[in-house]
Amino acid sequence: MSDLPEFEVSARLAVYAVEGIPEIGAGDSLGELIGDALQASGLAARDGDILVVTSKIVSKAEGRSLRADDREAAITAETVRVVASRAHPGGVTRIVENRQGIVQAAAGVDASNTAAGTVLLLPIDPDASARSLAEDLRARFGVRLGILISDTLGRAWREGQTDAAIGSAGVLVVDDLRGGVDTFGQRLEVTQIAVADEIAAAGDLVKGKASGVPVALVRGLGRFVVESLDTPARALNRTGPTDMFRLGTDEALAEGRARGYAEGYAAGLAAAARAAADS
Amino acid sequence: MSDLPEFEVSARLAVYAVEGIPEIGAGDSLGELIGDALQASGLAARDGDILVVTSKIVSKAEGRSLRADDREAAITAETVRVVASRAHPGGVTRIVENRQGIVQAAAGVDASNTAAGTVLLLPIDPDASARSLAEDLRARFGVRLGILISDTLGRAWREGQTDAAIGSAGVLVVDDLRGGVDTFGQRLEVTQIAVADEIAAAGDLVKGKASGVPVALVRGLGRFVVESLDTPARALNRTGPTDMFRLGTDEALAEGRARGYAEGYAAGLAAAARAAADS
Repeated sequence: MSDLPEFEVSARLAVYAVEGIPEIGAGDSLGELIGDALQASGLAARDGDILVVTSKIVSKAEGRSLRADDREAAITAETVRVVASRAHPGGVTRIVENRQGIVQAAAGVDASNTAAGTVLLLPIDPDASARSLAEDLRARFGVRLGILISDTLGRAWREGQTDAAIGSAGVLVVDDLRGGVDTFGQRLEVTQIAVADEIAAAGDLVKGKASGVPVALVRGLGRFVVESLDTPARALNRTGPTDMFRLGTDEALAEGRARGYAEGYAAGLAAAARAAADS
Repeated sequence: MSDLPEFEVSARLAVYAVEGIPEIGAGDSLGELIGDALQASGLAARDGDILVVTSKIVSKAEGRSLRADDREAAITAETVRVVASRAHPGGVTRIVENRQGIVQAAAGVDASNTAAGTVLLLPIDPDASARSLAEDLRARFGVRLGILISDTLGRAWREGQTDAAIGSAGVLVVDDLRGGVDTFGQRLEVTQIAVADEIAAAGDLVKGKASGVPVALVRGLGRFVVESLDTPARALNRTGPTDMFRLGTDEALAEGRARGYAEGYAAGLAAAARAAADS
């Protein structure tokens, strides 16, 4: 595969599929296998390159596979908190906060592109997995590259899924424009762009779900690649007090109603007692 | 700007910033101005190219500007339904469903990158705007290109914003993998990729919020570009019965509590009346 011609970094980006990565098994050195594929592809790694790595192969390398007859139990075990659930013809969709702090369907437990009869859990700590990969590949190629680990997430209010970054090492996950000004000299209103999620999405466009190509190389975004590997994608998880959607609407209506009923019942009894006392 | 060398479409994509688009005013022909910029840039439009156009310049061309002292009123006027609102030091964030059917903060009313003292509303019908642009540019360049109109959206459960597609013409917005199989021959679990949103995100990485470059050209995704211009991004809006987050948690708790309180109060009174009758 030939290189792109030189180009203005701020003006362009290119995304390559890194082909030739074999089926991954527990205990494999992912850094070595991705490095070999990069080298064989003719894509010489460069300063500022970002590798987007599908979480699935990280999970496989880390031995996060389970027997499939445990799938519902696995989801339950990976769940820290149920956000919402809904029955549909194919079963029940559970949207939960998982151990990684991500709110997603089925806690990220995955049954596609895995050996028959097994499911895969997400890496225990995707940011740590990204750091380990970045260390290996920076040492091997002698350049400052960044790693994003991606997973496929559904979204509230929008159909379909998009890829997002669940692990990062050496890649700034947010482009913080707070305090910046626009071309009219006014303060920017939209202030924090989740660039790691945008990069993961761009990577998905060449990796593809059905293609079996699990790694994309993104070139042209060196401005987001930093020396430090401590750039956790976990910072993109919004849970806690600023989460306006910590419970699904039906769940919150039911919880509110139960609370209100108890309060109203007590108030009704008290009102009746006062009325009886007055008469 | 030189062209990319020939490459395997499925293996790579490239994103270019389309520079040289002037400040847009009401009544400007956006198709003509984008076409001129494309031509001047040396980026010869090709079959399968996708132009990602920031909604802001579409709004400007369509004269969707209002005086800024009307901003809160403008948000209210653009709101079909309030999903959630939250007070914070800078004011109140309102997440609403707007006239375009999109759930987003401030109904998409925008005060950055606009002339001082004005705000911009979203295009009335971004899919229609995309169709009109696609017709102009297909006629001019004689190639089958696609148009996406992008806007910046916040997300539930994730920090920061990403760009998404709010208008589409000639670009399939969803890559429907239902019925597909993975490399193990198993049915794919993740079935509908919102590729239009992923492409809008990729475009944002070269357009940039503070750069004033409002259009990106995405090359290499011709498999999503179709002859028909009837490929509405509106189909990506999920509202109605399948929306599990039609109300914010606090709002739903409050609504449920009020309902429950009324029911409980009546039940408390009734219980007291029965007890009095029995005694």
